[in-house]
Amino acid sequence: MIEAKKLKEDDLGQQAETVKECMKTILEDVRSYIDRIHDEDIDQMINILLEARKIFIMGAGRSGLVGRAFAMRLMHLDLEVHVVGETTTPAFTSEDVLVTISGSGETSSVVNAAEVAKKKSGKVVTITSYPDSTLAHMADVLVVVKGRSKEGVPASYIERELRPYEKLTPLGTLFEDCCMIFLEGIVASLMEVLEKGEKDMKAKHAVLE
Amino acid sequence: MIEAKKLKEDDLGQQAETVKECMKTILEDVRSYIDRIHDEDIDQMINILLEARKIFIMGAGRSGLVGRAFAMRLMHLDLEVHVVGETTTPAFTSEDVLVTISGSGETSSVVNAAEVAKKKSGKVVTITSYPDSTLAHMADVLVVVKGRSKEGVPASYIERELRPYEKLTPLGTLFEDCCMIFLEGIVASLMEVLEKGEKDMKAKHAVLE
Amino acid sequence: MIEAKKLKEDDLGQQAETVKECMKTILEDVRSYIDRIHDEDIDQMINILLEARKIFIMGAGRSGLVGRAFAMRLMHLDLEVHVVGETTTPAFTSEDVLVTISGSGETSSVVNAAEVAKKKSGKVVTITSYPDSTLAHMADVLVVVKGRSKEGVPASYIERELRPYEKLTPLGTLFEDCCMIFLEGIVASLMEVLEKGEKDMKAKHAVLE
Amino acid sequence: MIEAKKLKEDDLGQQAETVKECMKTILEDVRSYIDRIHDEDIDQMINILLEARKIFIMGAGRSGLVGRAFAMRLMHLDLEVHVVGETTTPAFTSEDVLVTISGSGETSSVVNAAEVAKKKSGKVVTITSYPDSTLAHMADVLVVVKGRSKEGVPASYIERELRPYEKLTPLGTLFEDCCMIFLEGIVASLMEVLEKGEKDMKAKHAVLE
Repeated sequence: MIEAKKLKEDDLGQQAETVKECMKTILEDVRSYIDRIHDEDIDQMINILLEARKIFIMGAGRSGLVGRAFAMRLMHLDLEVHVVGETTTPAFTSEDVLVTISGSGETSSVVNAAEVAKKKSGKVVTITSYPDSTLAHMADVLVVVKGRSKEGVPASYIERELRPYEKLTPLGTLFEDCCMIFLEGIVASLMEVLEKGEKDMKAKHAVLE
Repeated sequence: MIEAKKLKEDDLGQQAETVKECMKTILEDVRSYIDRIHDEDIDQMINILLEARKIFIMGAGRSGLVGRAFAMRLMHLDLEVHVVGETTTPAFTSEDVLVTISGSGETSSVVNAAEVAKKKSGKVVTITSYPDSTLAHMADVLVVVKGRSKEGVPASYIERELRPYEKLTPLGTLFEDCCMIFLEGIVASLMEVLEKGEKDMKAKHAVLE
Repeated sequence: MIEAKKLKEDDLGQQAETVKECMKTILEDVRSYIDRIHDEDIDQMINILLEARKIFIMGAGRSGLVGRAFAMRLMHLDLEVHVVGETTTPAFTSEDVLVTISGSGETSSVVNAAEVAKKKSGKVVTITSYPDSTLAHMADVLVVVKGRSKEGVPASYIERELRPYEKLTPLGTLFEDCCMIFLEGIVASLMEVLEKGEKDMKAKHAVLE
Repeated sequence: MIEAKKLKEDDLGQQAETVKECMKTILEDVRSYIDRIHDEDIDQMINILLEARKIFIMGAGRSGLVGRAFAMRLMHLDLEVHVVGETTTPAFTSEDVLVTISGSGETSSVVNAAEVAKKKSGKVVTITSYPDSTLAHMADVLVVVKGRSKEGVPASYIERELRPYEKLTPLGTLFEDCCMIFLEGIVASLMEVLEKGEKDMKAKHAVLE
């Protein structure tokens, strides 16, 4: 455990600067990603979600949390949705779709789940930064979401361009935030297609906690 | 359960538009919030996190998931952090801080936890959209995060300005996304103060799942 | 964190004795409880579970885990069941039943949930050691499960009879284990009433994890 | 979803009989198991738990819930313990031990975790019904817990002896309950070795939920 360490007077205000710089970096990054999403991928993803009998969501770590935030909205929209690993999640069948979220596209527990889903003749949607990853190759619908991918990038570029990101957005931060915002968009679109308003969604909102 | 409903040819591309419009709306919204965060609130929050012996995180629903994504990063930074309600979360003591995340500032299970935290003479950080809420009033450090607050807003404005948001960002969406990005900023700042790099954080990353 | 401490040679075998003594204590304790369960409480509980549209399960700490183990079985039996606080748990309505599990019958988050359930005109089943507790008084069906209740017990008896239990079965152990075994019995009974066999249940078993 | 089905008058009391018969079956079953636990396995398991820097617990489904109930007690005993897959669970290192709980000893996500643990040069404790399973073979300490194992059992015996169990205790019920009670015994023993009383444990008890 680290020692508690009071910010010195001199640092006052400086931390606020770092916080805001990081926030702006993330926003710009997600913004630059939007125009590169393929319209057909979006339509295919929405189609497959609407056609499925049950939707299963899976991701590890922070990707899993982003997936859960999405699952909650699908439940509000009255779709049958389950998070892999939660208590009342039932069996996956051929009429179901598994949405996998993995920056690297290689997370082993997620790959395992996708393998089972394919064996059961169900569908797989993969959201990842790596279009050549194992999960990408298993996908019926693939959505490539910006992360801090270094594939095919010259070393000098990494040094100059990616280093500053490392400092502000460790590990999968950009992928997770891009994913979160992208999935909000999918929810907005589903609201439109399903003709659900805020009132309908509120009616499904958990009340016991 | 709703009936599966294939997108009609005519809708192709249109859903992509909605998805992207929603994403842009969220980004602009978070962007407009950044400049209004008080620098002192940020510094106080970072200070209180560094001084605490243990950090506890609590939120219900999607706010709770955003809290967990933050908790994971604090763990990567080698701070002792626990999520209220998880299996191995220990007792809260006077040396600890509870970070509550609640758009309305009134979620009853979160208010209860904050009451216990105060009774135990610990500290409370509240992140909310409502500076006059119960959780805001109990806070040692208060961070007001933009949501779709209607407080003090004329009805005509709501009709004209907020309705479109409702369609694209139901319920607490804006609060949750603002919160997510804001907490990424706090993490970036803690990395700087604690002099932790990406490598240090990766070393703490869960490997068994 | 405590220091690691290797068992001394002399202790070998002695720890096995303690482990086995504790196991026997628990078994005898649960055994002595069985004959005291009221048959009508069982029938009422089964009735209310079968009549409900959705079943919600709630408990804090280890009681919550016992509740989840029960919820998993109800899902295998094809009943609609949700654990309060999990990602995809929907709104509670007047056609639903909330099963609360709390040794003391006073756990505040559980009491809150029961209050909301009553306000929504739904049903409440309470499993507790204290028939005079808040949760017991709110119950439509009350099942009293043996715990280490000290109510109405002379101090000398506590000294002589309960102390040894304290050493072997800390805090709510007896309540939780009694509850676990009792709920297995409820599952066996539901299998009979619903004419479900092991094969039917296996078909619903989660496969993606 | 099945149709709600009210118990008929004639069935009143009969369900209570099934419930109680199931409870007795489980208790006898666990009882018959106690004398067959090897004393050395118990001592080795306690030793390895005490020597570990961090204890990780993993199981899928109901076995995972039994593992969490155990993890909560280890936390009360002030040992550093984490549940694989929870938010704040850190990296596993060579000084740590992974306790795996799996009736079949073949659950793929658990096998994966054990493989990583071995690769990291840490220790593995396996609790299973199958001494020849993958997880059993990977174990530094193996505890065989009674389940409804059919290994080496003549078909006629299965028909005569195991069928009735199937009706009352579906799938892994016996394994899970045996495990639960066995781990309570391990907790009692650790309390003794670590000289912890109920009061010490209560002091660590979660208070914010």
